[in-house]
Amino acid sequence: MMKIKIDREALVQSVQDVMKAVSPRTTIPILTGIKIAATSQGVTLTGSDSDISIESFIPTEEEDKVLVEVVETGSIVLQARFFSEIVKKLPENTIEIEVQPNFLTVIRSGKAEFSLNGLDAEEYPRLPQIEEENVFKIPTDLLKTIIRQTVFAVSTSETRPILTGVNWRIENGELICTATDSHRLALRKAKIETENQQSYNVVIPGKSLNELSKILDDSNDPVDIVITANQILFKTKHLLFFSRLLDGNYPETTRLIPTDSKTDIIVNAKEFLQAIDRASLLAREGRNNVVKLTTLNDGIIEISSISPEIGKVTEEIQSESIEGEELKISFSAKYMMDALKALDGTDIQISFTGAMRPFLLRPLHSDSMLQLILPVRTY
Amino acid sequence: MMKIKIDREALVQSVQDVMKAVSPRTTIPILTGIKIAATSQGVTLTGSDSDISIESFIPTEEEDKVLVEVVETGSIVLQARFFSEIVKKLPENTIEIEVQPNFLTVIRSGKAEFSLNGLDAEEYPRLPQIEEENVFKIPTDLLKTIIRQTVFAVSTSETRPILTGVNWRIENGELICTATDSHRLALRKAKIETENQQSYNVVIPGKSLNELSKILDDSNDPVDIVITANQILFKTKHLLFFSRLLDGNYPETTRLIPTDSKTDIIVNAKEFLQAIDRASLLAREGRNNVVKLTTLNDGIIEISSISPEIGKVTEEIQSESIEGEELKISFSAKYMMDALKALDGTDIQISFTGAMRPFLLRPLHSDSMLQLILPVRTY
Repeated sequence: MMKIKIDREALVQSVQDVMKAVSPRTTIPILTGIKIAATSQGVTLTGSDSDISIESFIPTEEEDKVLVEVVETGSIVLQARFFSEIVKKLPENTIEIEVQPNFLTVIRSGKAEFSLNGLDAEEYPRLPQIEEENVFKIPTDLLKTIIRQTVFAVSTSETRPILTGVNWRIENGELICTATDSHRLALRKAKIETENQQSYNVVIPGKSLNELSKILDDSNDPVDIVITANQILFKTKHLLFFSRLLDGNYPETTRLIPTDSKTDIIVNAKEFLQAIDRASLLAREGRNNVVKLTTLNDGIIEISSISPEIGKVTEEIQSESIEGEELKISFSAKYMMDALKALDGTDIQISFTGAMRPFLLRPLHSDSMLQLILPVRTY
Repeated sequence: MMKIKIDREALVQSVQDVMKAVSPRTTIPILTGIKIAATSQGVTLTGSDSDISIESFIPTEEEDKVLVEVVETGSIVLQARFFSEIVKKLPENTIEIEVQPNFLTVIRSGKAEFSLNGLDAEEYPRLPQIEEENVFKIPTDLLKTIIRQTVFAVSTSETRPILTGVNWRIENGELICTATDSHRLALRKAKIETENQQSYNVVIPGKSLNELSKILDDSNDPVDIVITANQILFKTKHLLFFSRLLDGNYPETTRLIPTDSKTDIIVNAKEFLQAIDRASLLAREGRNNVVKLTTLNDGIIEISSISPEIGKVTEEIQSESIEGEELKISFSAKYMMDALKALDGTDIQISFTGAMRPFLLRPLHSDSMLQLILPVRTY
């Protein structure tokens, strides 16, 4: 019969982390719960929606502070929603959790006492056992940046499920992440630390990467990553984050990326973003949220949009340079803003191959990232 | 043809204030717009949903700062949603607004230029002309407190429309505000400054008071209040806030308030609130969000709640004193928390006249406020 005394703050943080994997809409009732397991080393919490599973470990001691006193080892599953609300609102800094016969679990803090009907932890699904042979490492902050710069471009439609994920290829010590919804594409490369030269080509659900990003801190501590045939594991100091991989082959995307260009513009991504944002205020009313870009003389770009009932907007932006043919092109303001946000406000080069061909956005002094957008035909 | 140059920050603030009155669901199309009128004194913005109307004035100069340059006086109505989003996102500190033929309105800032299809300001409904004969004054912060301590108790059901408002009675230099949804009642009194001894008895829609509260600052500057047969006007330095009054007679509520008591408890409102909040975590699952209070010996109160599927919670609170008969009583955790929040964490007296009778909560050392709650019958 498990009995522990645990630091409230550490428990609240752990519960908040594993809750990211708990879905109230699961069809497996026990997965609406959080598994709590106490050993002599500390307490492990687990949450899962069967696509994502998160394990958080609270050691008995950390930095000379006692976090858990394990009076008796054991385990229990408690309703996630109630358990998380209760621990947040308990009055004292220490919480006592005691499992009694029939999985009845008493939670005490100060003069408040909750008795919750628990479930048998033996019935909680086991997490995959992943052998940690082929580990590669990415600093936490870089991993979050890579996710942010690609995951927005995944498809939200289930008509081609493979496109709802981000393709991760690892070859020769380089990670190449690609996401596309077939109207735009985001690509990000990064050097990584690996222990061997193994190659991988997997597709990680966009939802998993979004949830992972939320529970990672902003340190540059390395995240250990292990890939198996159908799972990926991200591992930080006290967290294990498992995600299933998507089945199927990711489409070959390199042939979509134009290699030549007819018009090249160099412009500051931040100023450009603000102008597109303003033009899209009216464009949103239209059918497609479409804005138009027109090159003028002297390096000036005009951004414009018309919504017949509401009105129109035009704005001139001074670019660093415009080279090549004159251009009029229309595109989705949303896709452009997503791409410009991923480009982090730096100076960028935009390369066009005519008004009907996909165009590319790239940081001016780096080939680590590429954003591709298909233009919109207008009358 | 109106033409003005106006300070962006002042305009953004004014637009935000008058937007509180604009409803996208109005059946009168011109009320989806904001009226802008420029005179030699400054610019007045107006928003209205026909229940609430808000007028905000931006003077040409304030504290030696030029806020508006009126090149040409005039007026126009612009779509509220677009206009408010546009002014927020314009690039420069000054905005130029110029009305051209056919109500086409050009908004310029930096190199961004919007042309919006405006509407004839002559077609915008006139606000009521209120004679400012009988003005009374309440400091802004006190007015906000009075609203906060009463408005939560109005009815949200339209079955008795009069109960969706707060009853304001003014007699002998005292304001008495009452709100009830027939399950609980909140009453707040305050001394006010009046210029004469006129009495009033009106009912102000709860929604109006909530919106008013949002646009008032936290100063103690006086708000001028004028009451007419079917309107109330709140007036601050640059704002006019009009609300219609509810038709009908407010029910007589004084006879509902018990004058004797059988059990009196003195307790700190904040500690009591936290215990009720914890107990309600499980109670929320039940049918009525009901918690039970039981008096024990030595001034101890027990708060408890049971939700058969989930579990139970009990907590003991040390009160200052319990006088009179022993008591077991059940009540809505939500109503109790609302009342305790209104009581601002002070020491309070709770007076019961048995488990089936309404009970009263009052600050210990003041008779300015009273909260009444009807208990819930339990098996």
